[in-house]
Amino acid sequence: MTGNICGERFVVATFGESHGKCIGAVVDGCPAGLALTEEDIQRDLDLRKPGQSIVTTQRKEEDLVEIMSGTFNGRTTGAPIMMIIMNSEKDSRPYEVLKDTPRPGHADFTARIKYGGFNDYRGGGRFSGRITASFVMGGAIAKKLLRETLGIEIMAYTVELGGLRARGFTEEQVRERYSNEVRCPDPTVADEMKRRVVEMRGKGDSLGGVVECTAVNLPVGLGEPVFGSLDSDLARMALSIPAAKGVEFGSGFEGSRMTATQNNDQYYLEGGKLVSRTNNSGGILGGLSNGMPLRYRIAFKPASSIAAKQKTVDLSKNAEVDLVVPGRHDPTVVPRAVPVVESVTALVLADHAMRAGMISPVLKQ
Amino acid sequence: MTGNICGERFVVATFGESHGKCIGAVVDGCPAGLALTEEDIQRDLDLRKPGQSIVTTQRKEEDLVEIMSGTFNGRTTGAPIMMIIMNSEKDSRPYEVLKDTPRPGHADFTARIKYGGFNDYRGGGRFSGRITASFVMGGAIAKKLLRETLGIEIMAYTVELGGLRARGFTEEQVRERYSNEVRCPDPTVADEMKRRVVEMRGKGDSLGGVVECTAVNLPVGLGEPVFGSLDSDLARMALSIPAAKGVEFGSGFEGSRMTATQNNDQYYLEGGKLVSRTNNSGGILGGLSNGMPLRYRIAFKPASSIAAKQKTVDLSKNAEVDLVVPGRHDPTVVPRAVPVVESVTALVLADHAMRAGMISPVLKQ
Amino acid sequence: MTGNICGERFVVATFGESHGKCIGAVVDGCPAGLALTEEDIQRDLDLRKPGQSIVTTQRKEEDLVEIMSGTFNGRTTGAPIMMIIMNSEKDSRPYEVLKDTPRPGHADFTARIKYGGFNDYRGGGRFSGRITASFVMGGAIAKKLLRETLGIEIMAYTVELGGLRARGFTEEQVRERYSNEVRCPDPTVADEMKRRVVEMRGKGDSLGGVVECTAVNLPVGLGEPVFGSLDSDLARMALSIPAAKGVEFGSGFEGSRMTATQNNDQYYLEGGKLVSRTNNSGGILGGLSNGMPLRYRIAFKPASSIAAKQKTVDLSKNAEVDLVVPGRHDPTVVPRAVPVVESVTALVLADHAMRAGMISPVLKQ
Amino acid sequence: MTGNICGERFVVATFGESHGKCIGAVVDGCPAGLALTEEDIQRDLDLRKPGQSIVTTQRKEEDLVEIMSGTFNGRTTGAPIMMIIMNSEKDSRPYEVLKDTPRPGHADFTARIKYGGFNDYRGGGRFSGRITASFVMGGAIAKKLLRETLGIEIMAYTVELGGLRARGFTEEQVRERYSNEVRCPDPTVADEMKRRVVEMRGKGDSLGGVVECTAVNLPVGLGEPVFGSLDSDLARMALSIPAAKGVEFGSGFEGSRMTATQNNDQYYLEGGKLVSRTNNSGGILGGLSNGMPLRYRIAFKPASSIAAKQKTVDLSKNAEVDLVVPGRHDPTVVPRAVPVVESVTALVLADHAMRAGMISPVLKQ
Repeated sequence: MTGNICGERFVVATFGESHGKCIGAVVDGCPAGLALTEEDIQRDLDLRKPGQSIVTTQRKEEDLVEIMSGTFNGRTTGAPIMMIIMNSEKDSRPYEVLKDTPRPGHADFTARIKYGGFNDYRGGGRFSGRITASFVMGGAIAKKLLRETLGIEIMAYTVELGGLRARGFTEEQVRERYSNEVRCPDPTVADEMKRRVVEMRGKGDSLGGVVECTAVNLPVGLGEPVFGSLDSDLARMALSIPAAKGVEFGSGFEGSRMTATQNNDQYYLEGGKLVSRTNNSGGILGGLSNGMPLRYRIAFKPASSIAAKQKTVDLSKNAEVDLVVPGRHDPTVVPRAVPVVESVTALVLADHAMRAGMISPVLKQ
Repeated sequence: MTGNICGERFVVATFGESHGKCIGAVVDGCPAGLALTEEDIQRDLDLRKPGQSIVTTQRKEEDLVEIMSGTFNGRTTGAPIMMIIMNSEKDSRPYEVLKDTPRPGHADFTARIKYGGFNDYRGGGRFSGRITASFVMGGAIAKKLLRETLGIEIMAYTVELGGLRARGFTEEQVRERYSNEVRCPDPTVADEMKRRVVEMRGKGDSLGGVVECTAVNLPVGLGEPVFGSLDSDLARMALSIPAAKGVEFGSGFEGSRMTATQNNDQYYLEGGKLVSRTNNSGGILGGLSNGMPLRYRIAFKPASSIAAKQKTVDLSKNAEVDLVVPGRHDPTVVPRAVPVVESVTALVLADHAMRAGMISPVLKQ
Repeated sequence: MTGNICGERFVVATFGESHGKCIGAVVDGCPAGLALTEEDIQRDLDLRKPGQSIVTTQRKEEDLVEIMSGTFNGRTTGAPIMMIIMNSEKDSRPYEVLKDTPRPGHADFTARIKYGGFNDYRGGGRFSGRITASFVMGGAIAKKLLRETLGIEIMAYTVELGGLRARGFTEEQVRERYSNEVRCPDPTVADEMKRRVVEMRGKGDSLGGVVECTAVNLPVGLGEPVFGSLDSDLARMALSIPAAKGVEFGSGFEGSRMTATQNNDQYYLEGGKLVSRTNNSGGILGGLSNGMPLRYRIAFKPASSIAAKQKTVDLSKNAEVDLVVPGRHDPTVVPRAVPVVESVTALVLADHAMRAGMISPVLKQ
Repeated sequence: MTGNICGERFVVATFGESHGKCIGAVVDGCPAGLALTEEDIQRDLDLRKPGQSIVTTQRKEEDLVEIMSGTFNGRTTGAPIMMIIMNSEKDSRPYEVLKDTPRPGHADFTARIKYGGFNDYRGGGRFSGRITASFVMGGAIAKKLLRETLGIEIMAYTVELGGLRARGFTEEQVRERYSNEVRCPDPTVADEMKRRVVEMRGKGDSLGGVVECTAVNLPVGLGEPVFGSLDSDLARMALSIPAAKGVEFGSGFEGSRMTATQNNDQYYLEGGKLVSRTNNSGGILGGLSNGMPLRYRIAFKPASSIAAKQKTVDLSKNAEVDLVVPGRHDPTVVPRAVPVVESVTALVLADHAMRAGMISPVLKQ
């Protein structure tokens, strides 16, 4: 399969560019009978859209989604669901200067070579973070499907931003994750994070961070080892998010410094059900969900577009030049990545639940 | 596609269990005309096999591979290449005790539920680390193909073991990575690592670690964004290795704590070619190889099988019990994971080089 | 992969319903650098659209296509190409009567069961012949790509209609296939066919027929035996066209009544090139194109919607009832199927040419 | 996916060549818990193997299958099932003469070009009819799975041989289809067919024919329109059988000569169930099974290897030459194709039943 399509049984085909006419997705394989309207999708898109707060870019985008096919009388029909956002008019002139001078940290150089210079470079084109709106469209359907059939809830939240780490938080605080601008469930650290973002914006620089995702109520046995194991597919989708540079499950990299007596999760019975005291596995054993909460983290690099002067090469002249990237920039992508992480998690879980026959192709009326 | 098969154009279908008759793989899509004999594959399998040194399990496995199809007159034909290792006779009796008492950290519990108790639990069955022999079989062909067509070299090595980190090493030392038992290019730290492994073996406990992989001579543009981006597919394959719990590219998690001015790789010209001073991207921008060395790291948890007494549940009686896992164990899987990491890297790169039309389906005679 | 998506390397994801908002397709994997505008696609859509002549339905549809993504400065960029036709307002009320009384020969009954009654039944919904507009959108791009890179020409034409068979025709007449309303290259028989269609329309009945497709300038070796052989994939796509019920290559069913001495194509040299005197193989040997013209035929059943009274069951009452299907009907789908057959042929050939590395992912500027 | 692998959820990866070491298949995705031993597979292989009667080739092949993985205690485990037949020693010397002189009707020429001359040409190598043993291995498992879970029975039989057609037969005679050498359920015609085959063998020529396949007890709704419709996938697999040149469903090509009033199947109720009086659809409407018997036919060309002198080209000298193909030949492949047609039908139905969630990934113990 080609690169812009993901999934085996709950499939999302994405399309659109930053400065093109639209952004959208086609979902194929969604069961028939799911109640679905634009509101279900718009809610998640609104969490992703820029211009919402001081910690994100000041660009305004309306991002109103329209469902173009696949529903009838307010429910999915089993046919492909096409969703689209029309892009608003954008000023692409500033990008002309970037045509031959690839921005450090961006795909400008690699895309130019791969596509022989035919790629749409305006606003990063197909490599813009804007394409994650497609992930959110598909993810919103997947989330609703998982919730209504299996009771699965997916919550992502910022646990690190600019080196500041959330120290501790309750499940309740996780549920309220969207109540602060950095989407961090630890309110004290959230304030510090926000201050650091504002400070960094002032300097024309940017920050990275780490988003954690927890999903509860997973049945045991999601995943198709070995290459379609649950962690394999989550990792694949995690790294498909622009700016993601790492992923770890459960104790992850820290766990690699423990011994097995420290890291192995000991089993016991709770209400007649096998559970474990710790969750260093992140809810995955042998590539299969084990019934404990799924927990994993994604590392995001500092947003590559910054106001500071940088070094690059003018490829039309083969000469080293200084570059100042025009436009308004995100001082960090982390808060906006939070709903995107939830979306890709939902896509993987919905796909695997369908592969495992745990969600019927027709929902009860 | 089902879980035991990977790749789009260079495809590997794997089969076999720990205590079954055999382990093997079918490679479909390998170009015709590649010189290939058992020796090409055996070399890599020997690097993976257990019983080689004090730092790995003392189980002896011969692991002699035979090519069963797909070659003719010493070259590949374009037909599927089936490779097989016959398993030696194993004593499966100790595993009877494990049938109903899942080992912490293993897939025993999840596999039992997913496969309704029909799974072959002996030695972990299909979830044994032994299945990585299949990865190495396919990977050995991929490595040779990449080397002979594009000049790509792939080198993995231990950079962390039991919390001990390699401090610094030369490219030459990386080339000599198999000269010490822990496969660490920093010889001083290698000695410490080895001592710690031996010590841990004495305690009946085990260690985790981190394997880094570097690949050079990649053409620019490998990868199929967004979901088939190079990092997406490498991450997917990395997490398919048993005991892998995390993956990071370039500066990875550490980079998420930097600012963009620190983390962005500045471009300059070297011999008329655009390169970057740093390689915090790990050689991947926008999901595409950028011509710099590919560099990424995989975190492995401490091997789950240990001599120490652990807590589990007897599922036949639904009662909490103590468990002592019988048999001889790996005090760490990290050194043996090194050739496996090279193999999965080769599989991803070969697949993407073929997808991109950079390797012809027929090699020159 | 799910059912609404086809191809491996030149992929088409389709969406839309007969009475929904739109019909469309996303092409992923098209090489960058192909000159492409709406006109390239509209031309083929116009050949498919209804209401063009007395031999097809009198419904009028504008079917104006818009390219929504994937092109920049008039050329493809390597990003997904989304194309859409907005449906005009349709009167869906007549279909209410059909909700519970499945039309013989249509998908009404099977779709209702498969999708639990959630399917959009208006105008056949996702099972309408209208979805072939998506095939034509993708096919128009594939045809242009094949022509400009490999010089491949694809021509389909009616060879049988209502039992009347084309008796003989020249290559020139095949090139002029769209000059008569039934798209038959034998002008005498074309007139008879037309009269029979008009007569059948008067009776409220309909006719089937056979479309033949010839493609020239194929390189030797297209196809991926065994399951991805060229004939396998053409047959699969042929049967994806609504109303198609059979497919045969070269001498096909008639060849099965010959002996090998009659059916085997004898080789000889022509201009130093191996060719065969006959083409009973239809240009495919062992699932691979052999350099001779590809030739195959598709059988289409008589259009199922007819004015005559038919027997069905009212599923809401579980009672046998008589049914008269409302609306205007195609007295035959065969002439309109002609451009659709060309389209699916182009999709298969483009996909295989890309799989075989015969078309580069970047076209020369 | 590459060409030697088929299926989405019930996947078969095939390998092996005519004169190589072995022939085999890996089945991935088979539910856990199916009772399975070599006998289940051997039975079908024995129906396919040559040398059984005067109407097939006199070559003797033992074709003893061994299950190498994926079962435990006599049941499938959910892990990949590898099955293998070791080839007996064969005399490949006669094929040396064929290396440069492609046999008319065979893949010799196309394979040589596609694989750059690296292909194993001995006995047709990967293009030999012998590879259908792999189809039968996978198909035997699929048949058992379908029978035990859904009660589906699949029966193929010869309806035409050398132009002689079965005139009529009972369901009982279809069940006894393997009782005569040509596998034709009409015993009178079977005798005539046999005489014609013997006569043709005497002439050193060969015959083609048509195999019909009927499957009963299909649930309504198997198939994934549009490109994964049931007829699409059956057609694809049908054309993957060597020597197959056409396929038709229900009334097929003959139906294309009818009017809709003749061809539409009228519905009525039988025991409260919607059924149709005729079955011109072959049990498929809109690409979905409709609960009526699935019925389709495959046309096989006369076996290409014949004793008669033929025209070809010596590619090493670029000269036209006469060719006499050495060895013993099948005077027809039709009777041996019968179990192969059942196998591929089973593979498609099992795959679709699993895609539709109609077969659970774990069977009841």
